[in-house]
Amino acid sequence: MSKVETQLEDLKAEIVNEVPNDISISDVQYEGPELVVYTRDPKKFAKNGDLIRKLASQLRKRITVRPDPDVLSVPDRARETIMDVIPEEAGVTDLDFHADTGEVVIEAQKPGMVIGRHGSTLREITQQVGWTPEVVRTPPIESSTVSNVRNFLKQERDDRRDILERIGRQIHREEMSDDEWVRITTLGCCREVGRASFIISTPETRVLIDCGDKPGAEGEVPYLQVPEALGSGAQSLDAVVLTHAHLDHSALIPLLFKYGYDGPIYCTEPTRDLMGLLTLDYLDVAAKEGRAPPYESEMVREAIKHCIPLEYGDVTDISPDIKLTLHNAGHILGSSIAHFHVGDGLYNVAFSGDIHYTDTRLFNGAVNEFPRVETLVLESTYGGRNDYQTDQEDSERNLIEVINETHDKGGKVLIPAFAVGRSQEIMLVLEEAMREGKIPSMPVHLDGMIWEATAIHTTYPEYLRDDLRDRIFHDDENPFLADEFNHIDGGEEERQQVADEGPAIILSTSGMVTGGPIMSWLEHVGPDPETTMVFVGYQAQGTLGRRIQNGWDEIPMGNGNGRGRGDTLTLKCDVETVDGFSGHADRQGLENFVKTMNPRPEKVLCVHGDEKSTQDLSSALYHEFNMRTFAPKNLETFRFL
Amino acid sequence: MSKVETQLEDLKAEIVNEVPNDISISDVQYEGPELVVYTRDPKKFAKNGDLIRKLASQLRKRITVRPDPDVLSVPDRARETIMDVIPEEAGVTDLDFHADTGEVVIEAQKPGMVIGRHGSTLREITQQVGWTPEVVRTPPIESSTVSNVRNFLKQERDDRRDILERIGRQIHREEMSDDEWVRITTLGCCREVGRASFIISTPETRVLIDCGDKPGAEGEVPYLQVPEALGSGAQSLDAVVLTHAHLDHSALIPLLFKYGYDGPIYCTEPTRDLMGLLTLDYLDVAAKEGRAPPYESEMVREAIKHCIPLEYGDVTDISPDIKLTLHNAGHILGSSIAHFHVGDGLYNVAFSGDIHYTDTRLFNGAVNEFPRVETLVLESTYGGRNDYQTDQEDSERNLIEVINETHDKGGKVLIPAFAVGRSQEIMLVLEEAMREGKIPSMPVHLDGMIWEATAIHTTYPEYLRDDLRDRIFHDDENPFLADEFNHIDGGEEERQQVADEGPAIILSTSGMVTGGPIMSWLEHVGPDPETTMVFVGYQAQGTLGRRIQNGWDEIPMGNGNGRGRGDTLTLKCDVETVDGFSGHADRQGLENFVKTMNPRPEKVLCVHGDEKSTQDLSSALYHEFNMRTFAPKNLETFRFL
Ligand SMILES: [Zn+2]
Ligand SMILES: [Zn+2]
Ligand SMILES: [Zn+2]
Ligand SMILES: [Zn+2]
Ligand SMILES: [Zn+2]
Repeated sequence: MSKVETQLEDLKAEIVNEVPNDISISDVQYEGPELVVYTRDPKKFAKNGDLIRKLASQLRKRITVRPDPDVLSVPDRARETIMDVIPEEAGVTDLDFHADTGEVVIEAQKPGMVIGRHGSTLREITQQVGWTPEVVRTPPIESSTVSNVRNFLKQERDDRRDILERIGRQIHREEMSDDEWVRITTLGCCREVGRASFIISTPETRVLIDCGDKPGAEGEVPYLQVPEALGSGAQSLDAVVLTHAHLDHSALIPLLFKYGYDGPIYCTEPTRDLMGLLTLDYLDVAAKEGRAPPYESEMVREAIKHCIPLEYGDVTDISPDIKLTLHNAGHILGSSIAHFHVGDGLYNVAFSGDIHYTDTRLFNGAVNEFPRVETLVLESTYGGRNDYQTDQEDSERNLIEVINETHDKGGKVLIPAFAVGRSQEIMLVLEEAMREGKIPSMPVHLDGMIWEATAIHTTYPEYLRDDLRDRIFHDDENPFLADEFNHIDGGEEERQQVADEGPAIILSTSGMVTGGPIMSWLEHVGPDPETTMVFVGYQAQGTLGRRIQNGWDEIPMGNGNGRGRGDTLTLKCDVETVDGFSGHADRQGLENFVKTMNPRPEKVLCVHGDEKSTQDLSSALYHEFNMRTFAPKNLETFRFL
Repeated sequence: MSKVETQLEDLKAEIVNEVPNDISISDVQYEGPELVVYTRDPKKFAKNGDLIRKLASQLRKRITVRPDPDVLSVPDRARETIMDVIPEEAGVTDLDFHADTGEVVIEAQKPGMVIGRHGSTLREITQQVGWTPEVVRTPPIESSTVSNVRNFLKQERDDRRDILERIGRQIHREEMSDDEWVRITTLGCCREVGRASFIISTPETRVLIDCGDKPGAEGEVPYLQVPEALGSGAQSLDAVVLTHAHLDHSALIPLLFKYGYDGPIYCTEPTRDLMGLLTLDYLDVAAKEGRAPPYESEMVREAIKHCIPLEYGDVTDISPDIKLTLHNAGHILGSSIAHFHVGDGLYNVAFSGDIHYTDTRLFNGAVNEFPRVETLVLESTYGGRNDYQTDQEDSERNLIEVINETHDKGGKVLIPAFAVGRSQEIMLVLEEAMREGKIPSMPVHLDGMIWEATAIHTTYPEYLRDDLRDRIFHDDENPFLADEFNHIDGGEEERQQVADEGPAIILSTSGMVTGGPIMSWLEHVGPDPETTMVFVGYQAQGTLGRRIQNGWDEIPMGNGNGRGRGDTLTLKCDVETVDGFSGHADRQGLENFVKTMNPRPEKVLCVHGDEKSTQDLSSALYHEFNMRTFAPKNLETFRFL
């Protein structure tokens, strides 16, 4: 009998010993980081509300109880009973029975009403029908990404169960080494922005954090080929952690599966869905630009199948000697700070991913309280000496002013924006301004992936800022459902129509004017002197966005769009820049994050910024807070302990 | 046709083009780092003295010319001719013909006379007989190690030729990467003394420098198992460089071959022979102490077979982008500083190995002039704030005084000493003191491996200090042949006899009284109050030597030596310590090495010293010379460029 088998036998004995005699335990199995307990008496288990919590704290494991398949009632009958138990106002939109796990997935508009106070409704369901209910929210705006992911996972349920059992056994394997050390290896994202990728390693475990590309520098991918990365095989990694879905962190995650990786990806649920959306788009763009994509869309599906979603604050064993906890990073939907607790109190490292320190309209500010943390790996995008940004109140006033001036001229406002994050933030500004009469009510057209990204945001309101979450729970207050918002889904015809009509605001991808429907909008409204083009995000060197920002007004429109080669578009519109809507903490925010961090870490590695930014920030933190700080290069390894 | 084949074809064409028309070129092959040119006209080649040098500088390769096997004269006839050409005073002791390579190995007491002025005698031999002469020195004292190694290599000549051809092709393979970086990874020997092991890596190449054990801490071996070391297979290393034969640098070199390594070991010729001697003894000791040896003696032979000896100053291609040069380190016989030149002027790193900065009786001081060097990896054994040592003149005076006092009492001087290095240094002190009448002439008995180690020293006089080398070339001035020196080869009987006679000096291993014949000497002369026991080397914590130094005089003599268990030996002898004979630079020597180094490196990594020593030295070098200095931990990776 293997070590894991013995361990499971012992756990089963302990559980049998702990539960009342009238509750039978038929099996105990690992499923990813969770311990699943099968019982023929799910109703009695469910009645005993505190039992699971007590077992979990005694065994120091995450525990899920499932009915032994023998005791499940017939789905049709169960369906009736469930619909009786759940109050009608919950708005159940789908019920899905999985005989293999004994779970019934309940999709409802108001999941809280399905759960009931302290889970009382769920327990009643289990008592009545045997099935274990799992609740998901009916997206208020339908998202094809979310439904594709959910359908795919439903269809791959058998495969996924095997994967989770294998991962579970890996996590709970025996420790092999007496050595004690913790190391971080930098594979990218040092003294540069892009291709985020790090390894945290101990004598037992190797975990990869992020695996992104470098926008504007195709081919500059993380140093995966060196021996300490995948040189000894992708299977040598225990786990992958994805802080958030931006491509500079996620683009090459699916590539790992092409290289033979077959383990878990830990991230939040929205990060999983957004990664699916953005990596598939990444493949599309590569194909359109005639570049060979680094992997096929099949690998994106593999990645999604291997995702183990964690909620903020869940403490999860990911290997024999590492516990992972994700915390809100305030940057984009589902973005996380990844906190690693190594050994039994041996060492703690937090990877910031990308952070926004203060609250925005969309998100609560980044968490900076941890039980312990000795080393912080900190993003430094705006870490430079002078990287202070306009504060958001002033930025919003500036934007409103530009919109009012343009409206007064009878023109349109064209805003290139990234689909994920900044678009939704601007939508919230516009919705409030119209509601409060600061700008006139007018159509806001959303083009490109913005609508889909917004739909994903509304699917996961628990990841949004508290007050916004509460508003989304009530359809009549959901700001994203405001009448002014229009999804451009009618192609060129609809765009022409919008162009022919009166004042409007247009939000369209891509955010740096490097392709996508914004190119079409440039043709429709760019030559109109009444139009104002407003940049609200960073425009990288070499992009068309940066050129227009710098005064270019003769735009070559070679390809696509049904026009001949060599045509030139002459822009006559005003061009404005409104900063302050960044998803990143500015220099002050980064300093405040560290200053108020609790506990204060001993060491900080400044990464995810150009050479000057990381060195400025490293030096400032050293002098202000007397910590050991570093501005690592790529391909270095730091040992702690 | 592979890249290497094409390259060889091109080289052959270039050579054919360059040599006079009447010299035929039949083949061109790589053999390790050398390019071997086969010709049917070796005599004409030899006549044209400058041709090889010109070819070498034009092709930027090390070139060896060999006769096409067809043109070699019959060995018996060649033997006669060769003996006629070489002057009798050269003292030829052996001739050995190798038909496969066309070489004749000439062993002579005076190799210089075989070589002739600027190689004139060698060229004449080639002209007369076709064979290529290779000259080795007849050891003035016969060394079984040296003759075993030479016989073994003779016997493995075919195998070795295959190995060298394979390595040659590896070295001259095509470069694969456009990246440019240089990294050092620390696998041991950081903030500790022992288990020296480093990797220097570039996008093309990975080279291991040293692979030692940690004396007094069995099991604390270099971190070979991590992915960036051998995790992706021992075959992933391009080369191994051994700075010197001490076990803290060499003990685990043979283990690499057990792990599947099959590439070259670059070191000096004496380092190769001493490594053979010391690692075989290392296996013996492990067996005697009942520990499982980490590898079998077969692996020592594999290591020797894969050695490619380099002379100090030879610039050698060891991979497509790295050139290695060894320089005298002044520490023990054949000890080297390993200088790596990366790329075409890209970066230079020097690994000090262990160094002695000033001249000693045995060796010239360490070299610290290099064409270029940006980073120095520096030993720090005596790097601590107060690690200043008595200078050698005073130390010698102290030793002489102790010897005279003991002689006056009619007693014996017992000196525990390491076989390699310090024993020979003491022998030179004693020889001179007796010759100059500073101490009375008396027998000096050499026990343990000291005699054998001395024999190896006299085999390689070109590695000794200039004036010592010159003396060894004349038998009547060779200090190691002084009449007073006696090799104890008669076992207990001879020792008893020495004990029963009058005043004498006894040098015996082991140096820290942890085993070996010194244990027997303790019994023979230790209880005699007329005896003086003199420590001339560092005694590590936990050794019997350290205990005796601290005043212990009741020695448990449990096992071996024909005595019963539980016997106790009571020492009545005087115990003295004379420091200043260390093979390591002291704090002042380390500072002077760096201060006068030319060019001054930008960065220094202080290693091979305990935590305090490395940090003290790192901080001192930073403050005095304003360089970037580090005291790395094991398992870190530093990137340069
Ligand atoms: Zn981001
Ligand atoms: Zn980022
Ligand atoms: Zn520093
Ligand atoms: Zn040494
Ligand atoms: Zn050493």
